[in-house]
Amino acid sequence: MKPIILTGDRPTGALHLGHYVGSLKNRVAFQNDYKQFLIIADTQALTDNFDKAEMVRDNVVQVALDYLAVGLDPKLNTFFIQSQVHELYELTSYFMNLVTVARLQRNPTIKEEIKQKGFDESLPVGFFCYPISQAADILAFYADAVPVGEDQSPMIEQTNEIARRFNHIYGGSTLKEVKSIIGKIGRLPGIDGKTKMSKSLGNAIFLGDSADDIKKKVNQMFTDPNHLKVSDPGQVEGNVVFMFLDFFDPNVEEVSQLKEHYRRGGLGDGVLKKRLIEILEALITPMRTRRQQYQADLGYVRKILEDGTRDARAVAAKKVDEVRAAMKLIY
Amino acid sequence: MKPIILTGDRPTGALHLGHYVGSLKNRVAFQNDYKQFLIIADTQALTDNFDKAEMVRDNVVQVALDYLAVGLDPKLNTFFIQSQVHELYELTSYFMNLVTVARLQRNPTIKEEIKQKGFDESLPVGFFCYPISQAADILAFYADAVPVGEDQSPMIEQTNEIARRFNHIYGGSTLKEVKSIIGKIGRLPGIDGKTKMSKSLGNAIFLGDSADDIKKKVNQMFTDPNHLKVSDPGQVEGNVVFMFLDFFDPNVEEVSQLKEHYRRGGLGDGVLKKRLIEILEALITPMRTRRQQYQADLGYVRKILEDGTRDARAVAAKKVDEVRAAMKLIY
Repeated sequence: MKPIILTGDRPTGALHLGHYVGSLKNRVAFQNDYKQFLIIADTQALTDNFDKAEMVRDNVVQVALDYLAVGLDPKLNTFFIQSQVHELYELTSYFMNLVTVARLQRNPTIKEEIKQKGFDESLPVGFFCYPISQAADILAFYADAVPVGEDQSPMIEQTNEIARRFNHIYGGSTLKEVKSIIGKIGRLPGIDGKTKMSKSLGNAIFLGDSADDIKKKVNQMFTDPNHLKVSDPGQVEGNVVFMFLDFFDPNVEEVSQLKEHYRRGGLGDGVLKKRLIEILEALITPMRTRRQQYQADLGYVRKILEDGTRDARAVAAKKVDEVRAAMKLIY
Repeated sequence: MKPIILTGDRPTGALHLGHYVGSLKNRVAFQNDYKQFLIIADTQALTDNFDKAEMVRDNVVQVALDYLAVGLDPKLNTFFIQSQVHELYELTSYFMNLVTVARLQRNPTIKEEIKQKGFDESLPVGFFCYPISQAADILAFYADAVPVGEDQSPMIEQTNEIARRFNHIYGGSTLKEVKSIIGKIGRLPGIDGKTKMSKSLGNAIFLGDSADDIKKKVNQMFTDPNHLKVSDPGQVEGNVVFMFLDFFDPNVEEVSQLKEHYRRGGLGDGVLKKRLIEILEALITPMRTRRQQYQADLGYVRKILEDGTRDARAVAAKKVDEVRAAMKLIY
């Protein structure tokens, strides 16, 4: 049997190249060797978007389309909608008894996110508790591994603490600890050079962007402000176009030569941007084709989500049964 | 249609006369005029008994037996097991986004309970959040009213805040505010005169006690330690036997005369205790008979719980559908 991965996204907007580099690319690479449960985490998205529930709902199908566009195969992976797997609510309820308020307050990921989002007195209980709900997601599907960014490894520690605590209190080994797969890849910057590509920062290239969009956005990219004439020597460090080439250009050798040439002088930004546009187009064109195919048959996309959610429920229901049995909470 | 009440107990032990005076008696009185949902709150009990889940499970049927023994009619009331009404987990999850951590920390009932239970660093998230889960219980069943002790009215305020916040955010009037029915009756002391009758204090007369138990416990009751001879004048205040007569003796006039006589001197404790034993026996004998009948057919008791839980689920499922529709969270 293939090892199991649990991974997914909050449906709060269209996915972009940052998502592709950070996770989607790996998922495509993993899909033959792992059984992947792809959670579209609407319940989690609601914890800080409860006043935009309709937006969250509408993005669920969009995220599924993004998954299909990048080449995630619904026959190899289980696509599902978190809120529809009711078993997760019950697991979360049991796990909430195994974590202290003090422990949640010490979770570095949550601490950082609370700061970023400017929550203070207004911190919703749901958001504060989402590491527990996330642990339920992971443990419900018998996951062997979860791919995470480095900043999220406290979430995996929290999950494993819950698993150990549960097994300790109720005996046996009902819950299995999970491993992190920590991506070696850095974070893709935005087209403005800011450290993070993000929809809300308005600096993203979306997987659903048209050829025109991509051209326009690459042409907006910051290069070296002192590189005025083609013959001027240019700076590679902090040059967004080179940062993108490092991420996407398969020809590392040529990129290295281009950097050399740019530093020496005599290489224009236009040439580099043209190259990047071609590379991104080569990446996104097949995504665009797949997206168009699926978009023309949204009923089929909905069916993929329905089938996946049904399959996910069956797995989670088995886990809840095991959890109840361990707790001897059977009526 | 009858107005709806939501009420119930945590299944953490046998119910006693304190429960009878504080709530069960009223429920029997209410059962013709109200539709009562009687929640056996095992999920809530787990929030501070997660390491005794089996004890909680075992007490569920015992609480149902206590309900039947006091004369609560399963045809008039809906008996149900909280953990089996899965819709409540989902409602709780949505409501957790509408309450801030700061607001929970200010809840006076929870603050007091946290102190009493000696939680500090060890406060479980589940316990901290139980007012939200309780709000889900109340709002799920379209309750018009909830009978509460005075110390619990902050729980009703919390529930109504959630209802208002939900309606404000999502529009419409999906959730209905609920009224408290605050019992006028004081708190029954233990047989040792301590302010509260409680299983854990070992000072309780249980609804399931035998005639011998009751006799023994009444005979242990504190009276007036200075009332050594029958002819001595005795003190009525703080005299546990009189406190119980005030609660249970239907003949207020005679009790008043007995107090007079006791104060004057010439009335022995034995006479008073004999009277109290007779009164408690008269109260408990029919309970004992009903308990024996049901105990002989536990399969029937389980069926009452199954049927009630199924009915409760149907009601809660309707409410969850309304909640999802208001949030436009429909797939």
